[in-house]
Amino acid sequence: MDPDSVAKAFVEHYYRTFDGNRPGLGGLYQDASMLTFEGDKIQGAAAIVGKLTSLPFQQCIHAVSTVDCQPSGPAGGMLVFVSGSLQLAGESHALKFSQMFHLMPTPQGSFYVLNDIFRLNYA
Amino acid sequence: MDPDSVAKAFVEHYYRTFDGNRPGLGGLYQDASMLTFEGDKIQGAAAIVGKLTSLPFQQCIHAVSTVDCQPSGPAGGMLVFVSGSLQLAGESHALKFSQMFHLMPTPQGSFYVLNDIFRLNYA
Repeated sequence: MDPDSVAKAFVEHYYRTFDGNRPGLGGLYQDASMLTFEGDKIQGAAAIVGKLTSLPFQQCIHAVSTVDCQPSGPAGGMLVFVSGSLQLAGESHALKFSQMFHLMPTPQGSFYVLNDIFRLNYA
Repeated sequence: MDPDSVAKAFVEHYYRTFDGNRPGLGGLYQDASMLTFEGDKIQGAAAIVGKLTSLPFQQCIHAVSTVDCQPSGPAGGMLVFVSGSLQLAGESHALKFSQMFHLMPTPQGSFYVLNDIFRLNYA
């Protein structure tokens, strides 16, 4: 698969897991992984999943608007930049967001998330 | 300086140069650098400066709202994620944007931009 297809497939998998089985996101992070969520810094797969599963909303649906990707250097990583909207259950308006992922290859030929930065786009 | 201070100083320098002396941005990129600007992919310092100096607006002012940063791995790089607004001369409303930079260290102890992804936040 070309990098753009890999990035799109990752993004679809990530948000489908987030919206349907949030604890399952743990398999995408490792101990070195970092998440900055609305300015909060969290490190390590377990702490990141703890953060994501304790957000103050349970049901949500992500809709992706754009996916941009670039190779991140000689280590074989990939930067993925996403814009989209987040619909929370019971809310009438969706929230726009931007998020970036730095994916690193695993020995098994897959990727894990080394860096993850999320921000809502305040209008 | 701690990483957050380095990131903030870079971001201030970048947008001050963009708004006051756009051709001067060339010194921040190298041949391996990549820019994705609203989905357009450009590689190399010369082509990137060509793109940035030929955008369909001359005078603009960037205002930064948030700066998040994380180390990007063992190569000593740094990921910087910015949200802000862009005021174009003669326009009444500012445009919201999100932009990420992957900064890599130079032998001189400074940084250059290896990856740069820019997106306007459509409301």
